[in-house]
Amino acid sequence: MAGLPVAVDAMGGDRAPQEIVAGARLAAEEGIPVVLVGPPELVGDTAGLELVECTEVIAMHEDPAQGVRRKKDSSLVRAAELVRDGRASAMMSAGNTGATMASALLRMGRLPGVARPCIATPLPRLGRAPAVLVDAGANAECTSAMLVQFAQMGAAYVAARYQVTEPSVALLSIGEESSKGTPLVKEVHSLLAELVPSPGSAAATSSGLRFLGNIEGRDLLPSPADVVVTDGFTGNVALKALEGSLRFLLHTLFEVFGTDDATKAASEVLMPHLLPIASALDPENTGGAMLLGVEGVCVISHGSSTSVATLNAIRVAHELARGGLVDHLAEAVSAGPAGQA
Amino acid sequence: MAGLPVAVDAMGGDRAPQEIVAGARLAAEEGIPVVLVGPPELVGDTAGLELVECTEVIAMHEDPAQGVRRKKDSSLVRAAELVRDGRASAMMSAGNTGATMASALLRMGRLPGVARPCIATPLPRLGRAPAVLVDAGANAECTSAMLVQFAQMGAAYVAARYQVTEPSVALLSIGEESSKGTPLVKEVHSLLAELVPSPGSAAATSSGLRFLGNIEGRDLLPSPADVVVTDGFTGNVALKALEGSLRFLLHTLFEVFGTDDATKAASEVLMPHLLPIASALDPENTGGAMLLGVEGVCVISHGSSTSVATLNAIRVAHELARGGLVDHLAEAVSAGPAGQA
Repeated sequence: MAGLPVAVDAMGGDRAPQEIVAGARLAAEEGIPVVLVGPPELVGDTAGLELVECTEVIAMHEDPAQGVRRKKDSSLVRAAELVRDGRASAMMSAGNTGATMASALLRMGRLPGVARPCIATPLPRLGRAPAVLVDAGANAECTSAMLVQFAQMGAAYVAARYQVTEPSVALLSIGEESSKGTPLVKEVHSLLAELVPSPGSAAATSSGLRFLGNIEGRDLLPSPADVVVTDGFTGNVALKALEGSLRFLLHTLFEVFGTDDATKAASEVLMPHLLPIASALDPENTGGAMLLGVEGVCVISHGSSTSVATLNAIRVAHELARGGLVDHLAEAVSAGPAGQA
Repeated sequence: MAGLPVAVDAMGGDRAPQEIVAGARLAAEEGIPVVLVGPPELVGDTAGLELVECTEVIAMHEDPAQGVRRKKDSSLVRAAELVRDGRASAMMSAGNTGATMASALLRMGRLPGVARPCIATPLPRLGRAPAVLVDAGANAECTSAMLVQFAQMGAAYVAARYQVTEPSVALLSIGEESSKGTPLVKEVHSLLAELVPSPGSAAATSSGLRFLGNIEGRDLLPSPADVVVTDGFTGNVALKALEGSLRFLLHTLFEVFGTDDATKAASEVLMPHLLPIASALDPENTGGAMLLGVEGVCVISHGSSTSVATLNAIRVAHELARGGLVDHLAEAVSAGPAGQA
């Protein structure tokens, strides 16, 4: 596995192919094996990297299901096939999120026992490893069994990615009490509570996660739990609400900085302190979202990914493939009660 | 109506009764008639205001349904009864949100044709009137007919409160396309699209709202639409995610300001510019949330309300009662197709 390259969708993202190829080049210079996938006439200069040629590209806003069905020789579908065929250790794209998921799901297939794959997206926490939100948008409609599996896979993922032992899991709701929320949330609450190992029981090792109960939207930044579980509709709305408000406040702050000479001078004093924080909150630097529950590692980077974001995403894909993430996820869903659901 | 007082729950909120009574006193000094409601031995000094005496208080974290059922002589239940009995024009509380809703619903009753009342909460927009989020948490589970009524009532509310003509309405989803979201969201999308008046049709006046389509979580701050419609679960999560991230960033910014003498000096230059923005984003200053769909005006202020927040909430309650909000809401829900749903 260590010798296999990461398959990089050279045509995915608002700044493809230039920034994507540049990021892949940086990864190669670090010793990470990479292979680009794309139509040679569109990719252009490959910076000396190997290119797996194809003839089509699924556009950013193209219908994902139709795109994957019709464009069988697209960079996304071919990248997923490289993983399926054992020719790549992982795939990475900053392109159409839905089409990336569909390519991975249709070509790699689901992990045994997994009802539906989900998207795990980092929630920044200053000064420590991010928390992870599952599902951040793969499934608008969910069952309780799906949400329990998201919790299990999310816990296995943060354990593998951030070396968290006994990851803590919280359920996103509209009150801390177990009686709060939709019927779905209440049912998931009781199922997750059952996963908590009783003292001394054998279940302690089988679930390997600690359930903290419900948290609310105001607790997402920073999250007290390593994994926050919700359906893909709520998760996507919440994540984008956070992104939008951070962007809005930073924009407003920079406008204030530019008011006059005095504010500009003041901003120069503060900048060295503010930039590391802005950087920690920036999706560019978190290494992208991960599709959990397919038979391979699939990293979905932000649509506006630069070469640095691409490099970070490739690093994550490479390390998790090498660390056996897929095996850990398969083990996680087979362990708990939902493995039989 | 103009001469009737606003019934103020003197015991509602983290800073009750002192800040609530002080806010009511400020309102009275502006010429707004107010009456306090609460147990005299707990309220203490009424600052010269009339007190309607009762014997019980529903605590902030008490179960709302049980509280209202058992504590028939509580300040919340009595305040709602004053409105029902035509002895007050409106009620205002900064206490237990669920119990405030339950008191208003059970004592005032629903407006004819309204399936379920909803909570309308302001979403700040710098330099212009706030947008309004409906439902911000009253109903964790919703039908499509309920959401259409939330849109109609939200539109009538922003028209009355912020003098918006032809309010614009957007539906919160996980993509702009009408095909995105849960089955509920897709159905509401098509129902709201039908409400849009065809050019020259009589429906132009009957709905009185413009449907802008779907928006995403990242569009909430600032919202392009005057009214954002969603179910109470998603709405509550999104609203608290916004509140949490604003609080987090302001807290982080103030920490940076306090780093050393240089940053402290820089912050003093910026403060006069930042304070008006922080103030505009502060829930204290927006006049509270409104319960829409009951037979009376009911303002729910933030739990941490100070005298200023209390004053603002009482002002809003007084003005909307005087402006005939309840009649406008009744008209709005009877106009559209959902009036028959």
